[in-house]
Amino acid sequence: MSAAAVLPAKLDGFVRTEFEDTCRRRFFYGLAFDPYGGTAGLYDMGPTMCYLKSNVLAFWRQHFVLEESMCEVDTTCLTPEEVFKASGHVTRFNDVMVRDTVTGECIRADKFLEEWSETQLAAADLPADRRDALLHLLHDAAGMNPAEIQAVLVREQIKSPKGNPFSEPFPFNLMFKTHIGPEGDRVGYLRPELAQGIILNFKRLLDSGNAQRMPFAGACIGSAFRNEIAPRSALIRVREFTLAEIEHFVNPNDKSHERFDRVRDVEVWAWPRERQAANEEPLRLKIGDAVARKTIDNETLGYFIGRVALFLEAIGVRHYRFRQHQSNEMAHYAQDCWDAELLTSYGWIECVGIADRSAFDLTQHSLASKKDLCAREEYPEPRVERRLQRQLTKGLIGKSFGKRAAEVMEYLNTAPAEACEAILAAHQAGQDATVKLCTGEVVITPAMVSFEYKDVKVTGYNYTPSVIEPSFGIGRILYCLLEQSYWVRRDGDAKNEKRAVFGFAPLVAPQKVAILPLMVKPELMAVVQALRDDLVLHGLSVRVDDSGATIGKKYARVDELGVPFAVTVDFEADGAVTLRERDSASQVRVPRTELVTVLQDLCRTMRPRDWASVQAAYPAQAAAADKE
Amino acid sequence: MSAAAVLPAKLDGFVRTEFEDTCRRRFFYGLAFDPYGGTAGLYDMGPTMCYLKSNVLAFWRQHFVLEESMCEVDTTCLTPEEVFKASGHVTRFNDVMVRDTVTGECIRADKFLEEWSETQLAAADLPADRRDALLHLLHDAAGMNPAEIQAVLVREQIKSPKGNPFSEPFPFNLMFKTHIGPEGDRVGYLRPELAQGIILNFKRLLDSGNAQRMPFAGACIGSAFRNEIAPRSALIRVREFTLAEIEHFVNPNDKSHERFDRVRDVEVWAWPRERQAANEEPLRLKIGDAVARKTIDNETLGYFIGRVALFLEAIGVRHYRFRQHQSNEMAHYAQDCWDAELLTSYGWIECVGIADRSAFDLTQHSLASKKDLCAREEYPEPRVERRLQRQLTKGLIGKSFGKRAAEVMEYLNTAPAEACEAILAAHQAGQDATVKLCTGEVVITPAMVSFEYKDVKVTGYNYTPSVIEPSFGIGRILYCLLEQSYWVRRDGDAKNEKRAVFGFAPLVAPQKVAILPLMVKPELMAVVQALRDDLVLHGLSVRVDDSGATIGKKYARVDELGVPFAVTVDFEADGAVTLRERDSASQVRVPRTELVTVLQDLCRTMRPRDWASVQAAYPAQAAAADKE
Repeated sequence: MSAAAVLPAKLDGFVRTEFEDTCRRRFFYGLAFDPYGGTAGLYDMGPTMCYLKSNVLAFWRQHFVLEESMCEVDTTCLTPEEVFKASGHVTRFNDVMVRDTVTGECIRADKFLEEWSETQLAAADLPADRRDALLHLLHDAAGMNPAEIQAVLVREQIKSPKGNPFSEPFPFNLMFKTHIGPEGDRVGYLRPELAQGIILNFKRLLDSGNAQRMPFAGACIGSAFRNEIAPRSALIRVREFTLAEIEHFVNPNDKSHERFDRVRDVEVWAWPRERQAANEEPLRLKIGDAVARKTIDNETLGYFIGRVALFLEAIGVRHYRFRQHQSNEMAHYAQDCWDAELLTSYGWIECVGIADRSAFDLTQHSLASKKDLCAREEYPEPRVERRLQRQLTKGLIGKSFGKRAAEVMEYLNTAPAEACEAILAAHQAGQDATVKLCTGEVVITPAMVSFEYKDVKVTGYNYTPSVIEPSFGIGRILYCLLEQSYWVRRDGDAKNEKRAVFGFAPLVAPQKVAILPLMVKPELMAVVQALRDDLVLHGLSVRVDDSGATIGKKYARVDELGVPFAVTVDFEADGAVTLRERDSASQVRVPRTELVTVLQDLCRTMRPRDWASVQAAYPAQAAAADKE
Repeated sequence: MSAAAVLPAKLDGFVRTEFEDTCRRRFFYGLAFDPYGGTAGLYDMGPTMCYLKSNVLAFWRQHFVLEESMCEVDTTCLTPEEVFKASGHVTRFNDVMVRDTVTGECIRADKFLEEWSETQLAAADLPADRRDALLHLLHDAAGMNPAEIQAVLVREQIKSPKGNPFSEPFPFNLMFKTHIGPEGDRVGYLRPELAQGIILNFKRLLDSGNAQRMPFAGACIGSAFRNEIAPRSALIRVREFTLAEIEHFVNPNDKSHERFDRVRDVEVWAWPRERQAANEEPLRLKIGDAVARKTIDNETLGYFIGRVALFLEAIGVRHYRFRQHQSNEMAHYAQDCWDAELLTSYGWIECVGIADRSAFDLTQHSLASKKDLCAREEYPEPRVERRLQRQLTKGLIGKSFGKRAAEVMEYLNTAPAEACEAILAAHQAGQDATVKLCTGEVVITPAMVSFEYKDVKVTGYNYTPSVIEPSFGIGRILYCLLEQSYWVRRDGDAKNEKRAVFGFAPLVAPQKVAILPLMVKPELMAVVQALRDDLVLHGLSVRVDDSGATIGKKYARVDELGVPFAVTVDFEADGAVTLRERDSASQVRVPRTELVTVLQDLCRTMRPRDWASVQAAYPAQAAAADKE
């Protein structure tokens, strides 16, 4: 991993309007339902970005599912209400909203406060304590509840963007609601995350022979939906998006990771919560050291942070950092959480969340569904443990309590050890014991039950696994990759003309090869067609430009789409073609018979060939063509 | 393409309970939200089926998008109401429902009538005309409106399954409804098909340089949702499913296809509507002949039928036929429609619909959004055409009509030629012309407008493209592939033991290679781990079984998951391993150094190596291992 000396504060020389113009003109993405004027927060992706997406997802499957032997599942977006009641989403999956009391406009409070504090921070000559207070507000806004937000609004006398008073802040549930079935009486929600669908398959995955052993991970790629209050920032805050999530199930008593050595030396920019609290900058950390110092809570969490870093580097992300959640940002059950943030013209954007969700979800679903969702740890050798044994005299209990007998037996069979010991103490003192049930008090005589501690042989124990979740916002990653890959070529003869280039790595490049005939003549077009079919047959995505444009113009067109390699075909007698690399614009002559292999090697997923070795192997060609 | 001599009527020797037991035990698929008892019509797929799905979709992209240079788009599930109002879904995307008037149960009427007629047809000694009438009912039920269904219910005195009277049939809209945005006032639907999302991108795709020329195709893979009245038949009739759709935009005046020669000789089982009407069986047809005879409406439709057949064969579908829609089954705008139906234990299941949707959708969206959604055909040479020219005296019209002037001018600028000629005739006869507008009659004097036919040079014409749509139900295809790939091995020593095998083609097989150590010893496990990493690095999905089971049991386990090749690793000194092919259970010895290449060749997407050539190249190994 290449060590970046400094973490940049912004993307150098990035002009958003020019970038957006290229994206619009080549239809990378655009508002969905465009002829109807679009719908806020709903975007379509065009062909180039579709290829990019499917290449990124294919590599995600290779890097995580295949390499780590994860169990992928494909779960549904439609989710019945009881699932999100148990998980807490129905009551807690809210953003805090404020309403402009005059215009009625709905505004998301935390984002509004963040922007407000950034504006204040931009002022010159701020006193140090005021600056500190504003930085704290900027960092803390995301975790504030309505009352805390109201306090800030009052203290700072903040008005709406239109200068009107705000309503009191109130929670707004972000899930889309619908009804399932012809009777219309069954409430369902569109999932706002994939986690519950994977977690509810835990037992099937454990039992079906796909995993069997703990720990193991489930994985899922799919759509999720959030009814954002104020969608904005292009593909960053939208209402429908693709997630790729991993739920790694692990024994809470042992969060070590078998392959931790593979990431021990991976170095990342990390921003622990203490440094954020002290308004200090991120620092460079080795995963191994961070886990040893408990900066990162445990090995498994650290392992995934390392693997995420390797993933981001492989797909060509240049600027990223890992920010630890502050305590008030995390869900109350989460043990630790780190976000991979990617740099864009909108600032640092959270793209991957890596959270230790503890055993919360499985516990909640087990309680709500009354199903056993445990795993079992077998001891290497059976152990002898002292256990409380219960012996019930069912006939007597039945006779004594009639209809209430079942309740009494349920209680005696499941009451915690202390309660049993209290009964036992009464009985040993020669008294009956009185216990309080839901339906009132009952008297338990010594004849009804006996308790005894016995040594028993125990072969293992059941536990509810902890879940460590890396969750990838694919649309956000793609958008950040777009911004970070974008640059403008100004060399060549056309110095005044700016030419947009997307410098995608061959691994994820939407199309791998452009075929550019030097002239549009039937004989040449037959050669082009044959070459195209040959490359497609070998699984390489190809773009042919057989227009009458100059070769320089054709290069510019495919540079704009991020095509890494271009082949120009002419009538040369040497049986060779010109192969050009996008970023360097350097060219070599490659025999037609070797071309497919060279391109396959340059574009393959694992250990691709580098351009320098191709330059070393074949004669250079002057890059005159670019200037035409 | 291998010619099947006879089209089977059912899957030979298929026992559904055994099949379902294997699918459940190995978690191929299962009801979603299982701990809560599941939800009708919502299914999750487990790891094996996820791999199968992503392999089938990857090949779909290769076979259609890449080979045909289609423009893939990624569009949203959430769709604002105006889109489905224009497309007619809000008023017409209904199934006919009947309600049991006693129990309140909702029943889908067409499916109920189909099942009812099948039950009646099973009776012995049916008179020929009664049999004919029932067959017609069976074929026609899907296209009936509520009144027609009511007529059948009354005529045949049909009661509900519980023996109660039915309500009158009524339409039930199948779209899931929700609300978009924080104000909750914007109605949205979950798309029931992908078509509208692709079609609304027509203009962007045409203009963005991704296509430019007509004809071209848009493509999309994504989720769709239908609130089925009665979900059933495993993965066949569900409420959330994956579709892969192509919308091929073509000039309605020229539906020829450039590459039609590639499918001219493809032979398929076809069931034209005349043969269905005559209760005759499907017949074997060449695509070229079927288009020449107009059995298939046009070349482009025929081309896609041929390409679909090649796709189905490549992914390993064994039994399929193409059934033409009857006139009353098609949407009113459709010109022709063929379904690829796949054979299952539930009968023939519609899995791919290939429809000529004419220019309906683009026309509707153009009208509703008031946007130009046309393509343009340039003539090879400009033509001289006689055109009606209109010259309006705007000042006079303005003065004469005041507030109504805009309406009058709009009329005079856009009125059809006949209406203009009528005005002209009146003027030439020395009279004023009276025309009727929305707001009443107006009198047009000769001074207000002049009409004249002139010869003008025309370089081309605008048109609204027709759309030819192949739409693939991916979940259905996967389920049918499961049923058609399933067989039971009864050979070997264990004659009484039935061993389930899924005979997936290597192209789509969920996992390609099983690695099975003969013993679980640390030295051997190091070899296994190295081999696994090597294969994964080369993109091959691998399954390791390092349990203590016998090798025969291990083979049985991976046969059940459809893994086509298994490598057994032992301590042999010759540096070779045993490679076994699943269906034949035959084995060869392959040097470790050549293994990765052999397996890559056997599993590659395009032109894979066949097992016979591997058997010819390497020494056979007695298949004793299976009998252990």
